[in-house]
Amino acid sequence: MTRDLERIERTKRVLQQQQLEALILRLPENIVMLSGYWPMNGFAFMVFSVDKDPVLIAPEAEAELAHESWVSDVRLFKWGLVDSGDPYASIAKLLKEAAARLGLANKPVGYEGSFEAIAAPYVAAEPGVFSQVSLGMIRQAVGEHLVDATDLIHRLRLYKTRDEAERLRLANRIALLGIAAFFESVVPGKTEIEVAAAVESAIMIGGTGLQGLKVARSWASVMSGERASKAYKPHLLSTQRRLVSGDLALLELATVADGWWSDLTRTRCAGAARPADLERWQAVVDGQAAALQAIRPGVPANMVDKAARDVIVQRGLGPYFIHHTGHGLGLRYHEPQPFLHPAVTDVLEPGMVSSVEPGIYIDGWGGMRCEDNILVNETGMEVLSEFSRALTG
Amino acid sequence: MTRDLERIERTKRVLQQQQLEALILRLPENIVMLSGYWPMNGFAFMVFSVDKDPVLIAPEAEAELAHESWVSDVRLFKWGLVDSGDPYASIAKLLKEAAARLGLANKPVGYEGSFEAIAAPYVAAEPGVFSQVSLGMIRQAVGEHLVDATDLIHRLRLYKTRDEAERLRLANRIALLGIAAFFESVVPGKTEIEVAAAVESAIMIGGTGLQGLKVARSWASVMSGERASKAYKPHLLSTQRRLVSGDLALLELATVADGWWSDLTRTRCAGAARPADLERWQAVVDGQAAALQAIRPGVPANMVDKAARDVIVQRGLGPYFIHHTGHGLGLRYHEPQPFLHPAVTDVLEPGMVSSVEPGIYIDGWGGMRCEDNILVNETGMEVLSEFSRALTG
Repeated sequence: MTRDLERIERTKRVLQQQQLEALILRLPENIVMLSGYWPMNGFAFMVFSVDKDPVLIAPEAEAELAHESWVSDVRLFKWGLVDSGDPYASIAKLLKEAAARLGLANKPVGYEGSFEAIAAPYVAAEPGVFSQVSLGMIRQAVGEHLVDATDLIHRLRLYKTRDEAERLRLANRIALLGIAAFFESVVPGKTEIEVAAAVESAIMIGGTGLQGLKVARSWASVMSGERASKAYKPHLLSTQRRLVSGDLALLELATVADGWWSDLTRTRCAGAARPADLERWQAVVDGQAAALQAIRPGVPANMVDKAARDVIVQRGLGPYFIHHTGHGLGLRYHEPQPFLHPAVTDVLEPGMVSSVEPGIYIDGWGGMRCEDNILVNETGMEVLSEFSRALTG
Repeated sequence: MTRDLERIERTKRVLQQQQLEALILRLPENIVMLSGYWPMNGFAFMVFSVDKDPVLIAPEAEAELAHESWVSDVRLFKWGLVDSGDPYASIAKLLKEAAARLGLANKPVGYEGSFEAIAAPYVAAEPGVFSQVSLGMIRQAVGEHLVDATDLIHRLRLYKTRDEAERLRLANRIALLGIAAFFESVVPGKTEIEVAAAVESAIMIGGTGLQGLKVARSWASVMSGERASKAYKPHLLSTQRRLVSGDLALLELATVADGWWSDLTRTRCAGAARPADLERWQAVVDGQAAALQAIRPGVPANMVDKAARDVIVQRGLGPYFIHHTGHGLGLRYHEPQPFLHPAVTDVLEPGMVSSVEPGIYIDGWGGMRCEDNILVNETGMEVLSEFSRALTG
């Protein structure tokens, strides 16, 4: 993978401004950003110096991947074999040596203290996390002059580079394989869980190896009928509920492509749609279109929300659009900024990536949402996930 | 779900011994153990007192699930809707109120400071974690008399209760739906990623709703041919490699059933197997059988490892069995104990759950592993994942 110089330079500039000598990273989402290496087990460290070459500390099992990164100084620790010993003892030693090489003893160093949500690594069943153990090893390596750099890192992540935008185009491209499978699968007789499985299979099978992707995986949740009236909730269990003709089904879809994320939603009707449902769907799609139309550099986030909300209010559905219009994403399924919410006046800037996802949820009826991912560019925006928004057909 | 009194009483006893007034928990794997509620988003807190009724703090979106728990005092916070406000401000307030109700101010309280690996929640794409933010809220609620209870919690988890053993039987039951799909899918012409997708689909579709399960999900990794010579590594990417007749394929499978885990492996041959491969497989299966035979209360962990290793060494394959024979699991894909490793002399005791997974890995040829999960009982052990170990047919 080509080194993302834009990302590296920007990070060094911010570290200089904040008078930090380095970042010590342990979360895959931050390591992939600064090294191009996505730690598969979520068990690696990176020391990124403001003025010297960085150091990667990776498990031997991931040596090949780590050596494909932008980092030439890769140091490996043993883990998981009979003669591996304690990996933490090895990591602590390697961190200390890296800190010594980079001259970091008792220098101000940033760390990932306040990430309260993390992106799943490839071994999503058991992600590694930043705990007091990681913090203790960092303290041993560089001393007590530590700075919680969580906000600084999120701020860096807010502005995607050209290379990063390309990664997100690819993440969305494979996610759309899942959306296509969703369109095919929503037919009378299928269960919610069957539809979800079809979506995930399509992305795994179609996405793996595409443009060299090692990991193409997704998490699909399908809620149908009246159940979708709760689909604004951040968990959406798929069940054995079987679709009947006229049922609406909502798909919430998180997709990861070698560490880069997409977050999409579509709603489809099994069989022929009722005219009233088509009308409500049109309100959602028109609301989304108005939001997309409103996005350009300099526009406050709440004006984008308002564009979508005004349309949905005009159609008499305002009370049912109960969440924000969009959120940031990229190195995680959700990032804190931008936040397209009525109360947020931060302006949009080129390089920001957001979901745009108006929806309506009515007790006793069901729910609908249409969600795409966009990149703010110099003149407006680019939809990263362009695909049919048809409810049927 | 029935309250697991055995678990609750044991936990209170250990807190008393350690002179702790309470545990404040944030990780789903610990909350489900003590409440029966598995936080879907991984964003909830539990205050478990040594002598008073516990308090659950859950997002409104999960109110129904939290109310199905063993805890009567459930307190909800808003999250994710237009008018939700800052969830952390709400949680901090609720934690403070709970601590006040339970009389915890300035009392010794345990927290989850050193979990360096966590179990994925249902929203596995973006698990919530214990960070400095969680720690800060706990400090605000109870003061500075905090004790890192990570080891204590792992120790509690080491001994499964009768109800917990039942949950693990169910997790393995659905995992075996995946193993059955693996047996059917390993045929010439299929790709590794197609096989992996078939396994995951079978578990989702067959497991969801079974005995009331809300979440039946898995992570399948398939390595075939020479690629499987690296299948001892803790990441195993499935690829577009297509199976040809005589190819061996190894499946590593993590499965979760409402917060309870299974970890299984099988190896299969696409089409007819070579005699030499059948012979090697027999060594692995016999090694596993010897280990299973050796397991009973009072036996040191390394004697179980030795039982498997001796068989494999006798067949001339010793140098290729490069990892331990097994590890604990239950509330996570891997737990630190028991650890069936040549250097570990801790004895096995009733209630412990372990994987038993000898394997061989030979450069230029491939790899084989056979992994089941067992429960140590009063007289010996129970295989939780009994299923064919045939290489072909």
